[in-house]
Amino acid sequence: MHIDAMDAAALARTEAELERSYAALRAEGLNLDLTRGKPAGDQLALSAALDGALEAGYGAEDGTDTRGYGGADGIAEARRLGAEWLGLAPEEVLAGGNSSLTLMYLFLLGAHRFGLDGQGSAWADDPAGARFLCPVPGYDRHFTICEDLGIGMVSVPMTGEGPDMDRVEALVAGDPGVRGMWCVPRYSNPTGETYSAGTVRRIAGLGRIAAPGFRVMWDNAYAVHHLAGGTPPPENVMARCRAAGTEDSVVQFASTSKVSFAGAGISFFGGSRRNVDWFRSRLSVMTIGPDKVNQLRHMRLLPDMDTVHTHMVRHAELLRPKFDCVRRRLEEGLGNLGMGRWTDPDGGYFVSFWTRPGLAKETVRLAAEAGVRLTPAGAAFPYGDDPEDSHIRLAPSFPPLEEVDRAMEVFVTCVRLAVVRGARRDREG
Amino acid sequence: MHIDAMDAAALARTEAELERSYAALRAEGLNLDLTRGKPAGDQLALSAALDGALEAGYGAEDGTDTRGYGGADGIAEARRLGAEWLGLAPEEVLAGGNSSLTLMYLFLLGAHRFGLDGQGSAWADDPAGARFLCPVPGYDRHFTICEDLGIGMVSVPMTGEGPDMDRVEALVAGDPGVRGMWCVPRYSNPTGETYSAGTVRRIAGLGRIAAPGFRVMWDNAYAVHHLAGGTPPPENVMARCRAAGTEDSVVQFASTSKVSFAGAGISFFGGSRRNVDWFRSRLSVMTIGPDKVNQLRHMRLLPDMDTVHTHMVRHAELLRPKFDCVRRRLEEGLGNLGMGRWTDPDGGYFVSFWTRPGLAKETVRLAAEAGVRLTPAGAAFPYGDDPEDSHIRLAPSFPPLEEVDRAMEVFVTCVRLAVVRGARRDREG
Repeated sequence: MHIDAMDAAALARTEAELERSYAALRAEGLNLDLTRGKPAGDQLALSAALDGALEAGYGAEDGTDTRGYGGADGIAEARRLGAEWLGLAPEEVLAGGNSSLTLMYLFLLGAHRFGLDGQGSAWADDPAGARFLCPVPGYDRHFTICEDLGIGMVSVPMTGEGPDMDRVEALVAGDPGVRGMWCVPRYSNPTGETYSAGTVRRIAGLGRIAAPGFRVMWDNAYAVHHLAGGTPPPENVMARCRAAGTEDSVVQFASTSKVSFAGAGISFFGGSRRNVDWFRSRLSVMTIGPDKVNQLRHMRLLPDMDTVHTHMVRHAELLRPKFDCVRRRLEEGLGNLGMGRWTDPDGGYFVSFWTRPGLAKETVRLAAEAGVRLTPAGAAFPYGDDPEDSHIRLAPSFPPLEEVDRAMEVFVTCVRLAVVRGARRDREG
Repeated sequence: MHIDAMDAAALARTEAELERSYAALRAEGLNLDLTRGKPAGDQLALSAALDGALEAGYGAEDGTDTRGYGGADGIAEARRLGAEWLGLAPEEVLAGGNSSLTLMYLFLLGAHRFGLDGQGSAWADDPAGARFLCPVPGYDRHFTICEDLGIGMVSVPMTGEGPDMDRVEALVAGDPGVRGMWCVPRYSNPTGETYSAGTVRRIAGLGRIAAPGFRVMWDNAYAVHHLAGGTPPPENVMARCRAAGTEDSVVQFASTSKVSFAGAGISFFGGSRRNVDWFRSRLSVMTIGPDKVNQLRHMRLLPDMDTVHTHMVRHAELLRPKFDCVRRRLEEGLGNLGMGRWTDPDGGYFVSFWTRPGLAKETVRLAAEAGVRLTPAGAAFPYGDDPEDSHIRLAPSFPPLEEVDRAMEVFVTCVRLAVVRGARRDREG
């Protein structure tokens, strides 16, 4: 029965039932975890050939001995793959180490504290301040970087086809302290949406209305991470930027973390030649160069995008049953009850769930007490603050299917219990 | 004949001979390189077993799947090795990625711009300013980090047993803007000297006379890199710090870059629990964790310090003929001529050579014109400025022995030519 259709007696009866179910689940002493989007063991095993991949030698295609120092750009074949991945030319790409997050941090560190354009250009030194637009719900580690660097955050809602661009344009045009925006253009973390062509075009146009030094951080973390057959890719943002004369305004990131090994993959940075030259000079101060041996290892496993796509189909086969399970549990347990809404993503690593306002923290707490860890409510918002206290990120990739199923059974029970308890309070109050 | 014993005729005769030799060498169109201290191919091949090392699986000793995200500390077995390497307890060590230089940069970045002790403790925010003591000759990339971060540099001479500690203590006690010092305690780059017990003890005492937040950057880059039988190790600096009550004042760094693969090794950070906790919290903002797979790979090859030492004996066998060649060429070509002095190191990657004052740049130029690239004169000094214009760093590890020999023949000729030309100018002028 839909929650709004329940009378007091129905509510009381339902609550009593739910309290019994919940108590029974608690009594099981479960220990389940849906917190982080990480590949499971069977997915990692798809890349087992990385070990031993260097039997054919350590020479890159241009003869570089990958075991040596240097080569801040990364090896040529990795840059070429990254270029195809990001829709750029190879000279517009740097291939990096095991963490694209580190590249993002170092890019923003450089822009904010050292300056994109020499002495005096650091955002931190500008009286207008430094703020970043943060589409929400978004990725908590993006927000942590801003917080660490002292870059303020301004939330902008996601719409189902990317950020609300009316809001974005108004903020960018109206506030010279807005220095950039976080974007996850495909299968966005955590809503799973892919930016529409119109969104991409409008993002490419931001450089024309923004203050100098404006940079969109285009984190294409799920560029090839389909669950279903594969939706059409977003528009090539750099092509759009070139058309708009704003090619310096967007910098791109990607990695093989959810393609090969989560903690031992390779990463890519991409952007205009000017951005690449600047970032190379920043990186050169602080590193002897990326791990080129690991880059070569990856090139042996994933020499081109065709191979990457084939590889990702196998990931999808392993992930899909878990996402199907989440959807089934949500539909069966919460469909048409007015107790929440959720996404049904075509790719990426997450399902977003929205409780009725004010119930996300309580739902997460109830689940934790029944032995199911969820990402903390609010984590997908700057400063961990979801003003509606409604969004919960579900990450079903890592646990085995039967654990996902049990965890979702608990989750559904917790959502229902929180809603019914809340409704009783509301009517009594 | 000693240069000071030459009369005008002898000088003219010698110069004419040297011009002929030099012209003959130039005519050969050589293309040789003694610029950087990097392992040669035969040394890198000693670690070939890294590829395929994971056949036994990806599990660390505590069960961690190294392929996953996380684990900012590095895997337990790598921390244990690092602890033995640095003379610390495992919980005083973090195992990192492929570049200890990156760890040094990020440590100093954190201390200078973010603060070792919370809000308001950043060196950059202190009116006393921020200066680092730089023993010279030293490592150019240390100096580049200071320059990038905006930390001033104050040169302190090396003495043969480490930095001039009278100068160091006077500067540290007299200037609250002195925030730390660079140290390469063993087989120092580029002089090859190892800090004496007295030097280490006095360094451990600096924390008692320095301003709060003082940190010695103890870059133990050549901790196990012997050329001869192995000299006794320097005193355990942390033990000395503990005795002095200054355990927060020294942070240590090391890596396997010149043990396994130069660009694809693993690194170590070590220090007091307080420094480790602080640095972990800094790193956690900007990375998903180090490449634990590469750490495990290394643990399979180099599980303990006994294995490391055996491995380094094989490196020494490959390196020693090159250093012997340098010494022989210098002794034969320049012995007792008053034309320069040089080191004869027991370890590390460099020979330091001092020309007569004012001749280093000229010597490097002459060598370059004869097809022998040397590290730029002055590179071992802050801002690239050797006030004596005398020091030249020779790095014979990378080229094949016969190339080292040719390059040293050219070098000796260039030193002699520069000296004789200079002496003629002086007497004429």
